[in-house]
Amino acid sequence: MKLQDLAERLGCRLEGDGSIEINRVAGIEQAGSGDLTFVANPKYLGLAETTQASAVILAPDDIVPRASFAILRADNPYYAFAQALRLFVTPSSPPKGIDRLSAIAPTATIGPDASIGPFVVIGDGATIGARAVVYPHAVIGAGATIGDDCVLHARVSIRERVQLGNRVVVLDGAVIGSDGFGFARDSRGEHLKIPQGADVVIEDDVEIGANSTVDRPAVGETRIRKGTKIDNLVHIAHGVQIGERVLLAAQVGIAGSTVVEDDVMMGGQVGVTGHVHIGKGAMFSAKTGVTGNVDAGVLMSGYPALLNIEWRKSQVLVRHLPKLKKRVAELEQRIAELEEKLAECRTRLDV
Amino acid sequence: MKLQDLAERLGCRLEGDGSIEINRVAGIEQAGSGDLTFVANPKYLGLAETTQASAVILAPDDIVPRASFAILRADNPYYAFAQALRLFVTPSSPPKGIDRLSAIAPTATIGPDASIGPFVVIGDGATIGARAVVYPHAVIGAGATIGDDCVLHARVSIRERVQLGNRVVVLDGAVIGSDGFGFARDSRGEHLKIPQGADVVIEDDVEIGANSTVDRPAVGETRIRKGTKIDNLVHIAHGVQIGERVLLAAQVGIAGSTVVEDDVMMGGQVGVTGHVHIGKGAMFSAKTGVTGNVDAGVLMSGYPALLNIEWRKSQVLVRHLPKLKKRVAELEQRIAELEEKLAECRTRLDV
Amino acid sequence: MKLQDLAERLGCRLEGDGSIEINRVAGIEQAGSGDLTFVANPKYLGLAETTQASAVILAPDDIVPRASFAILRADNPYYAFAQALRLFVTPSSPPKGIDRLSAIAPTATIGPDASIGPFVVIGDGATIGARAVVYPHAVIGAGATIGDDCVLHARVSIRERVQLGNRVVVLDGAVIGSDGFGFARDSRGEHLKIPQGADVVIEDDVEIGANSTVDRPAVGETRIRKGTKIDNLVHIAHGVQIGERVLLAAQVGIAGSTVVEDDVMMGGQVGVTGHVHIGKGAMFSAKTGVTGNVDAGVLMSGYPALLNIEWRKSQVLVRHLPKLKKRVAELEQRIAELEEKLAECRTRLDV
Repeated sequence: MKLQDLAERLGCRLEGDGSIEINRVAGIEQAGSGDLTFVANPKYLGLAETTQASAVILAPDDIVPRASFAILRADNPYYAFAQALRLFVTPSSPPKGIDRLSAIAPTATIGPDASIGPFVVIGDGATIGARAVVYPHAVIGAGATIGDDCVLHARVSIRERVQLGNRVVVLDGAVIGSDGFGFARDSRGEHLKIPQGADVVIEDDVEIGANSTVDRPAVGETRIRKGTKIDNLVHIAHGVQIGERVLLAAQVGIAGSTVVEDDVMMGGQVGVTGHVHIGKGAMFSAKTGVTGNVDAGVLMSGYPALLNIEWRKSQVLVRHLPKLKKRVAELEQRIAELEEKLAECRTRLDV
Repeated sequence: MKLQDLAERLGCRLEGDGSIEINRVAGIEQAGSGDLTFVANPKYLGLAETTQASAVILAPDDIVPRASFAILRADNPYYAFAQALRLFVTPSSPPKGIDRLSAIAPTATIGPDASIGPFVVIGDGATIGARAVVYPHAVIGAGATIGDDCVLHARVSIRERVQLGNRVVVLDGAVIGSDGFGFARDSRGEHLKIPQGADVVIEDDVEIGANSTVDRPAVGETRIRKGTKIDNLVHIAHGVQIGERVLLAAQVGIAGSTVVEDDVMMGGQVGVTGHVHIGKGAMFSAKTGVTGNVDAGVLMSGYPALLNIEWRKSQVLVRHLPKLKKRVAELEQRIAELEEKLAECRTRLDV
Repeated sequence: MKLQDLAERLGCRLEGDGSIEINRVAGIEQAGSGDLTFVANPKYLGLAETTQASAVILAPDDIVPRASFAILRADNPYYAFAQALRLFVTPSSPPKGIDRLSAIAPTATIGPDASIGPFVVIGDGATIGARAVVYPHAVIGAGATIGDDCVLHARVSIRERVQLGNRVVVLDGAVIGSDGFGFARDSRGEHLKIPQGADVVIEDDVEIGANSTVDRPAVGETRIRKGTKIDNLVHIAHGVQIGERVLLAAQVGIAGSTVVEDDVMMGGQVGVTGHVHIGKGAMFSAKTGVTGNVDAGVLMSGYPALLNIEWRKSQVLVRHLPKLKKRVAELEQRIAELEEKLAECRTRLDV
């Protein structure tokens, strides 16, 4: 594609030779002739000075001395990079139709132009939307609903009666609708299983990472709302409600019945206790442990979670505790001396 | 079911109209006419005032002003709720018999009334108990033993020679009997794999969550005892011994050769180091990191793990470190002043 | 095998009766007559006094009073134990050849003496090396390369174009080459998926644990170098580079684009943030949270990660914060008294 055309399609301002042919989008260190790359974070601008790329997406004010490449100016370079990649990368699309090695219940409904791979199992009364792609070994339970344009990668479990909206992506090995962890203790301390038979709803445009798990509850529902993206090995417990456009990084765990509002972002390995409420747009550093309700819009860190600014202060002080202890010991020494000397004075004064 | 009949089957005392027809067990906020719900924790009693449920399970002393519903009094409302759900929820049961799309070794033994789904693989000499349900894509290794009434959900791996007792439930994608993480370092720093070929035993009534992993050791055995329940994405390393009725929440990890006694409870994301002993009934807050032996019956928190009461105290103090630091700075200031003033006195007194 | 022969094959010095027949390698507490066991850590030497084993591998200077067994002296007893186990344990080897219930693309290449189990899927143009063992339900994407002598356990996903070297072991349910977690936010806060289509390379002799996930990046590559061993439920994000002979324990998570140099060791549940550099041979206690670059060779602990020696000091002080707070309160009391008494003196002296 000519750089000029690319600039138009990305809505970028072009600086340099628009007739260059761009063949690929590449990382700034791997890029060579014919490649487009980008700088999204000013701290990596230095890498642009030595890149071999033919063109670089930069922010409006980014300056690269002695730039040997054409420039595409974008207000949001990362977004322009994402768009460029979408122009160049053609997602692999397995053949449409139903592989003869699959096991589809006669009562299941498969939408037009869907692709069903080998060894896929689809249960009684399940519905697969138009153009959905179901990779090998996916297991879709009875009565499950898979929307249009969904992509279910290899070996996912979509359990019975789970509902997926349109354009939902589920990566390899993820499990949606497994039994929530619910047991009632009897008088002898034995655990009686509480049947977990209620609903799981995954709304439009959600992505769920490899080997992640989303449990179903005994009553009520587990719901993940529109546009939320979940990384690998994440655990969403029974009855959890996740809002729209939420981002959950890898290995996050959210315990039962917790409500996470829209636009929340959690770093990797964050844990949230059950039955709490996380306000809209709250953010959590990696490994944060959340033990209570959290207000909208705040940044939390540590375990137990504190406001990031407080947590940082207290962590600096924890690191400096040896100094503080030394200061206290010195004070004790100085006070002992003062007490002795004062006693001497008082003796002299006879008080 | 008539509420009167339900009260009898649950062993509850009925207050109100026993002739009401109950059709469903529901959450207190979703419940409507014809539904039974429950309050297990007094802090949710307020929700009962506005519920639309026809009947509510309450503890003997729970009081709901202006209750518009019939009441079932239970000593343990959560347990009664579990029992009620078990009366109303009929677990889906796939057809008995062996699906023709499975791959069963001729030397495997399948018990009466077992259900073997499509694409299940059962290895040489494996044994499947009576009435066991094996969902699609389960892979059962050579010589494995699956007890009566077990339920193996889709895509579990039960590796060779693993032994499962009766009524064991394994959720989707879990792996039992994978190689423990054991390597010996040679003089050049290379890691030589130690073959992990010893036993894994899962006793009666254990449940293992989706995508959890239980490793086998090189020597000895990994064992999970009767009635223990394990949530999703939990890692049990090689040679670990887990007692009876233990509860492990999601994303817990237990390192090699550690012994966990009966009735232990661990919150989500707890980690326990290898070769330690966790006493009977010990409890662990979510995210606790256990680095040594733990006495029976204690509640531990934090990393490194402390008794919860000590951990809470020290965490409050950590949060107040800025204050403490300020107090120390004030003391330093006051002492400097004292020293100066005292010096003046001493000059006057000529000491 | 005669103990004398075993001693020669392991390169150990024999003390005792070399004509003993050894049938098995066992744990020190389970070992009986005819068994060989070992003591690798002097703290378990006490167990040797009561073992029923016929022979024990010990370090050159280990002393066991009243030893009732023959001794094999090894400079590295753990390594000798590993070698011994490899002599006694014959790994199960499924039949060579391609199971008739697999789905192999006609354009795929299967090396000589490979074993392809039932329900395996191999995509267009994929290559499987000589003697590779592919267990049931493995899904190998189009254009993937699997080297010689690899072992892919049941239900792994090796995604399209992923490259595995020779002798790579992938345990059950692991996913290699899933989409990295990459989204660009548009002006309305919606997340646009960045196609993740670049390479994943797993070099020779790597082992990847059960249900672990290794993501592919949008550009560049994700690479795990020779001889690295990764435990269960580990997450390796897109664009991560892992060096040679690295050990990552269970539930570790490494965020995008981070570089981990050779010989690094991480305990369980360690988390490493993205875009940082971990120096050669650095070690990390379990649960450490790494938020920045780490120098070669250091031992880090805690969150945020500190040098272990500093972390230990500060943790002891955290535990003793109640004492420190009491000392400060006492100082305040003593200073108040001093101030009062000094004021009295100063009044007398009229200063």
